[in-house]
Amino acid sequence: MSAAELDAAELDAADPLANWRARFVLPDGLIYLDGNSLGALPAPVAARVGDVVARQWGTDLVRGWNDDGWWQAPERIGDRIGTLIGAAPGQTVTGDSTSVQLFNALVAAVRMWPEGAGAIVTDAGQFPTDGYVADSVGRLLGREVVRTGDPYEALRGGEVAVLAWSTVDFRTGQRWDMSGLTAAAHAAGAVVVWDLCHAVGALPLRVDADDVDLAVGCTYKYLSGGPGSPAFMYVARRHQAGLDLPLTGWHGHSRPFAMEAGYQAADGIARGRIGTPPMLSMLALDAALDVFDDVDLDVVRAKSLRLGEFFIAGAGEAGFEVITPREPERRGSHVSLRHPDALPVMAALIEAGVIGDVRPPDVLRFGFNALYTSFGDLARALAILGEVVESGRYREARFQVRPTVT
Amino acid sequence: MSAAELDAAELDAADPLANWRARFVLPDGLIYLDGNSLGALPAPVAARVGDVVARQWGTDLVRGWNDDGWWQAPERIGDRIGTLIGAAPGQTVTGDSTSVQLFNALVAAVRMWPEGAGAIVTDAGQFPTDGYVADSVGRLLGREVVRTGDPYEALRGGEVAVLAWSTVDFRTGQRWDMSGLTAAAHAAGAVVVWDLCHAVGALPLRVDADDVDLAVGCTYKYLSGGPGSPAFMYVARRHQAGLDLPLTGWHGHSRPFAMEAGYQAADGIARGRIGTPPMLSMLALDAALDVFDDVDLDVVRAKSLRLGEFFIAGAGEAGFEVITPREPERRGSHVSLRHPDALPVMAALIEAGVIGDVRPPDVLRFGFNALYTSFGDLARALAILGEVVESGRYREARFQVRPTVT
Repeated sequence: MSAAELDAAELDAADPLANWRARFVLPDGLIYLDGNSLGALPAPVAARVGDVVARQWGTDLVRGWNDDGWWQAPERIGDRIGTLIGAAPGQTVTGDSTSVQLFNALVAAVRMWPEGAGAIVTDAGQFPTDGYVADSVGRLLGREVVRTGDPYEALRGGEVAVLAWSTVDFRTGQRWDMSGLTAAAHAAGAVVVWDLCHAVGALPLRVDADDVDLAVGCTYKYLSGGPGSPAFMYVARRHQAGLDLPLTGWHGHSRPFAMEAGYQAADGIARGRIGTPPMLSMLALDAALDVFDDVDLDVVRAKSLRLGEFFIAGAGEAGFEVITPREPERRGSHVSLRHPDALPVMAALIEAGVIGDVRPPDVLRFGFNALYTSFGDLARALAILGEVVESGRYREARFQVRPTVT
Repeated sequence: MSAAELDAAELDAADPLANWRARFVLPDGLIYLDGNSLGALPAPVAARVGDVVARQWGTDLVRGWNDDGWWQAPERIGDRIGTLIGAAPGQTVTGDSTSVQLFNALVAAVRMWPEGAGAIVTDAGQFPTDGYVADSVGRLLGREVVRTGDPYEALRGGEVAVLAWSTVDFRTGQRWDMSGLTAAAHAAGAVVVWDLCHAVGALPLRVDADDVDLAVGCTYKYLSGGPGSPAFMYVARRHQAGLDLPLTGWHGHSRPFAMEAGYQAADGIARGRIGTPPMLSMLALDAALDVFDDVDLDVVRAKSLRLGEFFIAGAGEAGFEVITPREPERRGSHVSLRHPDALPVMAALIEAGVIGDVRPPDVLRFGFNALYTSFGDLARALAILGEVVESGRYREARFQVRPTVT
């Protein structure tokens, strides 16, 4: 065993989360460091989905909307996610994709200042959808969209209606201070829309305590809800009564079954519902969340930071350029390395049984889910990474470049 | 056997689709006449979804986006639906809810006339979401929304940018002439956005031949895609290059994996993609469509009309007011009766094993999927309906009113 592997064995032996790995289905021999793109399959999901298909849909048929609680699922599952982001019940709703939720939230946020001309300020380096959607909303509502790397400066520099920011940067893994940035936005008269995609489930969040206005996030990364599982929107209670959303599907109506001609938004978080939600994906997420019922996100965070520290140290020793901040409080739960041949290097790694992903043009990304990633995984991944790069065998042509999803 | 049951037995014996019922899982003893709300479970779905969860997600993990074809699913499944609506390949994309698709399509339709001030004309009696979404789009883009029962008159009466209409009315079952109404809209300088929800899978559609511009529809009714299965959007090829959609998620980008800061819409129907689609629901729909691979929708339509005729005749004889048009060409695949106590009558029917639904305030709705509804089902349903109403036992308090979904 190498020194790193010995260290890893010690750290794993002392890991308070070591036995959580059994709550996930992970293929033998694979080192999976892409749970920040698609989380591993939680053990309860397969049987639950089987029941939803065969019994609920197959025998209850349309009665499932009542008898199996399908109708209430968006708010019920929303509340389960709420407990993981520090939201009291009644402020989180599940459904649709993050792109759709973000569009809905951004329009509503801008509409909180109908008379103003304030800009939408958003992160220059963030996940593409966030910028695309901000541009679309700015165009529809006649607002300027400012992309910046320094939100504090932008808030000082001009009239800002909405600050739309990501808690953890999808590329670098940089974590932002939600509490401080939210306060700065409020001081400047802006509302905040946080994108929690790369944070939820990986670290404790306190949206209520941080006085967040609106937030959206996805559930298929650290929450392991399944490929494309529904996203969520958080709306602070103080904003709900006036929330003016553009996606006025009938599920968000105050009396959906009256089927009235005019839209009247539901009270509470139910107005964040849009159309009929994809129930199989929704209930797979519900089953996945069973894993989180007794999770302590402070413990998860502590281990996640040690995993990151371990990986950063190992990658640094091997001569890689680490672009993720070193300071624990400025890190999320993935670590990114820069390499000019990132795509073939990752292809070679995947071929060797280590799954991470690439963000163009030159970023190798490795995500750690403290519930199932071990220090031993990281020691082996680092050894293979070093070997693949040092030997130069990643240059062999048979490695295909493959896209993977956010 | 009553005369009606004898007739039904004869009709079932001559039914060319009789053996299709075995392609669906239907509980014994239940008469299911709500497949126009949630279609019955197709036989191939359970095993397929099981494989998607356990093998694709569980062992392929994020590689599923490539190795299992997840990334291509929205267009691939879109093309499968395309064959059922008369669309050549490359014009139909699957994903999101009908509400979201309709919003996206309506904004794009209005934007085809950026200089005009033309109204959005839509059906006064249509499904609520369609009206709510039209109002929201009208407000965002500064266009009047006109609700009417007579689209031809509205097209003659003023400047119309977009005609948004439903092929089959969700409440009355009235079918509109897509070819004629599309031509009238074009003659008036308007584009059409058809809502195919209550038509797709139940009758042949010819969106290409009818020169339709845009269409949306859901897949959980006659297509049996499962509760909340993803909707679809059709965009005629001639409109694709200029299509200016507001929901600019990264899946619709021309180079999604380049993760560029600026949005550049993909060529072709891929620009109709939004965010990451709910893959379990998507692939359940894919499996459901296997049932339709060799279906002849002209045969389906012929049987559907005979089922409707049979039900209308029986209900009329029993003294019910039928609000669905009698003329075959003006009917979809459900029949609606008016009764002042519609809710308790339906509750009693469901209690007795006949599942239909209610549209407020006073409409009893019965849907027929020619692939699994038999004439015998209808004869028994009519007998039970007559007994429930004549005896007055539907007035008993223990019957609860239950909502069901479109």
